[in-house]
Amino acid sequence: MDGQMMDQPLLLNDLLWRTERLFHDKRILTRLGPGSYHSYTYREYGRRVRRLASALKSLGVEHGDRVGTIAWNHYRHFETYFGVPGIGAVLHTINMRLFPEQQQYLINHADDSVLIIDEDQIALVEQLVALGIPNVRAFIVIGDGPLPETTLTPVHRYEDLVASGDENFEFPTFSENTASAMCYTSATTGDPKGVVYSHRAQVLQAMCLAMHDKLNMSERQVWLEVAPMFHANGWNIPHTALLQGATLVLPGVHPVDGDYVQIIEDLKVTGMNAAVTIGTMMRDFIRDSDRDWDLSTLDTMWLGGQAPSRAIMEWWEQSYGTHVVQGYGMTECTPQICFSSIKSTLTEQSSPEEIYALRQKQGQPIPLMKIKVLDESGNELPWDDKSVGDFWVQSPFTAAAYLNDDRTAENMVDGWFRTGDVGCIDPDGYVSLKDRSKDLIKSGGEWISSIDLENALMEHPKVREATVISVPHEKWLERPLACVVPEDDSLDDDELRAFLGQRFAKWWLPDEFLLLSEIPKTSVGKFNKKELRSMHAAGGSDGMRSTLGVGQRHPVA
Amino acid sequence: MDGQMMDQPLLLNDLLWRTERLFHDKRILTRLGPGSYHSYTYREYGRRVRRLASALKSLGVEHGDRVGTIAWNHYRHFETYFGVPGIGAVLHTINMRLFPEQQQYLINHADDSVLIIDEDQIALVEQLVALGIPNVRAFIVIGDGPLPETTLTPVHRYEDLVASGDENFEFPTFSENTASAMCYTSATTGDPKGVVYSHRAQVLQAMCLAMHDKLNMSERQVWLEVAPMFHANGWNIPHTALLQGATLVLPGVHPVDGDYVQIIEDLKVTGMNAAVTIGTMMRDFIRDSDRDWDLSTLDTMWLGGQAPSRAIMEWWEQSYGTHVVQGYGMTECTPQICFSSIKSTLTEQSSPEEIYALRQKQGQPIPLMKIKVLDESGNELPWDDKSVGDFWVQSPFTAAAYLNDDRTAENMVDGWFRTGDVGCIDPDGYVSLKDRSKDLIKSGGEWISSIDLENALMEHPKVREATVISVPHEKWLERPLACVVPEDDSLDDDELRAFLGQRFAKWWLPDEFLLLSEIPKTSVGKFNKKELRSMHAAGGSDGMRSTLGVGQRHPVA
Repeated sequence: MDGQMMDQPLLLNDLLWRTERLFHDKRILTRLGPGSYHSYTYREYGRRVRRLASALKSLGVEHGDRVGTIAWNHYRHFETYFGVPGIGAVLHTINMRLFPEQQQYLINHADDSVLIIDEDQIALVEQLVALGIPNVRAFIVIGDGPLPETTLTPVHRYEDLVASGDENFEFPTFSENTASAMCYTSATTGDPKGVVYSHRAQVLQAMCLAMHDKLNMSERQVWLEVAPMFHANGWNIPHTALLQGATLVLPGVHPVDGDYVQIIEDLKVTGMNAAVTIGTMMRDFIRDSDRDWDLSTLDTMWLGGQAPSRAIMEWWEQSYGTHVVQGYGMTECTPQICFSSIKSTLTEQSSPEEIYALRQKQGQPIPLMKIKVLDESGNELPWDDKSVGDFWVQSPFTAAAYLNDDRTAENMVDGWFRTGDVGCIDPDGYVSLKDRSKDLIKSGGEWISSIDLENALMEHPKVREATVISVPHEKWLERPLACVVPEDDSLDDDELRAFLGQRFAKWWLPDEFLLLSEIPKTSVGKFNKKELRSMHAAGGSDGMRSTLGVGQRHPVA
Repeated sequence: MDGQMMDQPLLLNDLLWRTERLFHDKRILTRLGPGSYHSYTYREYGRRVRRLASALKSLGVEHGDRVGTIAWNHYRHFETYFGVPGIGAVLHTINMRLFPEQQQYLINHADDSVLIIDEDQIALVEQLVALGIPNVRAFIVIGDGPLPETTLTPVHRYEDLVASGDENFEFPTFSENTASAMCYTSATTGDPKGVVYSHRAQVLQAMCLAMHDKLNMSERQVWLEVAPMFHANGWNIPHTALLQGATLVLPGVHPVDGDYVQIIEDLKVTGMNAAVTIGTMMRDFIRDSDRDWDLSTLDTMWLGGQAPSRAIMEWWEQSYGTHVVQGYGMTECTPQICFSSIKSTLTEQSSPEEIYALRQKQGQPIPLMKIKVLDESGNELPWDDKSVGDFWVQSPFTAAAYLNDDRTAENMVDGWFRTGDVGCIDPDGYVSLKDRSKDLIKSGGEWISSIDLENALMEHPKVREATVISVPHEKWLERPLACVVPEDDSLDDDELRAFLGQRFAKWWLPDEFLLLSEIPKTSVGKFNKKELRSMHAAGGSDGMRSTLGVGQRHPVA
């Protein structure tokens, strides 16, 4: 027997419907430059979103078409967040930090038919065209002035397009399972994998994040979205801010650490979300600054991507009364999986030490999210805070498949998704990750594939063996370290750096290339990265050199 | 193009899955008597819910079967909230305050196959059996002691049944559109109308209520559910408390005003929801009490059903710092439609007078809820706080139909539901109801149908004309007043009261029977209730008598 309720789909359009009416006077602000902000209301936002949607339709964008963006966090990028899915098209936010060959791959794999790009990305996109993105049939350039000279064609000014649209455009209705957005995630091997979100998933995720005991997103928040909007829906924070009618603050183009601090003071920001490194760099900026900053309005700082250190939690708490919280998510989960609020019963029973330890865990699963940890044989492990295994999740906002990708079967099994993370769960459902996806390095909030670097190194004629491990870094939290056994003694760092520089973005390149006589192996003959990391932790690069020997292994005399 | 997300349904079972694990140590408390409480954890709750579910299955309850309850607010009633829908059966909560013929109608119309009843309802249910409820094939009696003598058969002790169940029972998975619960709502004419909820509707509604800017239901709340659990899912509050892992407090059998006050003091209750009359009666109890009460923990008092007066808001605020909020809902909407949180921009701009006026409005629509006001020709009216019309709503938790009822077509039109309320919407989306469903009287939070009373009165041989209007009442907020034109002078109040007493519950009976010479009519010949209400407001019953004449209209000499 079915319930007799209306068959009303969960659509992003309907979140906008409500916000335009109820919170029409609340604002979206974008940093333009020092002390200068663009500001408009959700009413104006809604009008422009509808203009954009109707203009995209006029341009021939159909239900199901993919529209790529390469853009910073600003109000126009946010307009695409609702304008593109509003007509049933799919917003494909492209990571600006990838190197061009990766971007080319994503655009072709997603079959983007239109690209909406920031003006400062024109040279890059011209390069992509040269590499080959044959299915893109229009380019839309976001900027304030006239359209710059470009070989891109056909090309439109974003503002002209919006001006040509109909502010009374009515969004169509369609199934809540319709694709709304997509993002690619780095893979341990091979090309990035595409995740396609639905309206249903994004609406449900925003509702979960708007609940109490999460990031504290109420209507009265002034929320600074630092996490890039090309990262897994900007952590779905812009949607949640809109749902709640919160004031949304976007840092604009090329922000640096001091800009965030300035924005918080200028606009009396009350909450923000960013990668852990940003929280650290903001602290360093303030420490080194020659004036005091009034950040007393900042209640909540959500640091994600990695676990924030106790030191950084304490510094913000003591300096500004800012509560540092963390969540854990991934592109495949729209993206939040866990959030680290502390249960009242634990708050009452625990020492400050215990509370800090709890706050450094990845948190409890958000509503609608089921989790489990399995051992190597696929048996479910107890929630005892000790039994470590593969971490699996299941929810209406978790990917069931990667887009056109035969790696789906590796990770999506029996209705569950294998995160690739390894960890344990405590008796209250708090997750502790012990080891992230073994072969990825997270540097400043961005993934670097150690396998990709290794494979490239191994192609160098003077390299016999090579592996890349993650080592801790004060600023970026992790950086790649290359361990190389050379074929002959003529190989040096510079040659390897230049060799990798031909294919990878600069920030991917290992900071150090350790030329060693051998690389330890596991029992099955794989590079023993765990041992390498332990050796590095104990004695640094010098210790590794002295243990493993330097350079080519010369035949024993 | 569809998103590639897991096809995970929104099921009540999955809310329970999370709460059993994450909030296993949080508690559900039920008042047993003065200073005495039953208390157990959500872990124990979950085990008993699964035992109940498996025992119901053993009893032959199948997917889609209706299971009726006639019970007070206590932990065992709450067990049925998840145990019955958990197996795909439908929880039919029957209003304890209806008179037996109405209950008989509901049970037969819903086709309840099992009834779960409180021990003190046995005599009533025996009466229902005598009236005829032929499809009920088992009775389950909730109580602590042995089964009382009863003619009900077959009859089971609830506790025996739970003890026989399997605490490791695994809930099946099914479509989120599966019926989860049902309630009947009074109609202006004819029998009550059945509303059938789905898992999807109840999960979405609980998520909305758990969001910031609603009733403030966080994990750390100690929440007292005063609203009857047979009323529209107990306003969906028990589900929301469970979702959030909040401490849930239930007032047990036969609670009176002073009990609520005692519970709040005993258990340090932080939030509660109740009909407006309860908030008023609690105030009166405290005022008349000969001792001080420490209700300082009580942050939030949600008074619903009608708009709370400014006086009651101020009294609670000043006495205990308790913030009185209101919501607006109805059985057809699972049940919440609006919630009266005040936007920060309005808080900043408004005088205290304006804020109180705003707080007395019914509030803004909750997320996923669309609203509109239409004039008599079906044209949409502007949101100008002036244009009054029919109030319509649309959401995934609004009824698309009444169960097997040809009155569906009157209220469900083009995917919208006509609430029967009349009101306007202000430019910020705050709804003000001006006139409720014209022919219903809301007395102490319960509906009384004036039409039903009128129809019965008209059947009395000495009644020529009769109409029943709603008049304000200090305690019950509204009470019915009967206006009767007698056929002859021998008719008196007592005769009419006794006549109605044969078919209606005592609390339905009008407090006063005004015997008048005439009843004013509208231009189309209907009783002019609006004019009657105005006359009563201006001069009371005496004024009405002097204007309209007393008793039988004697022929003009």
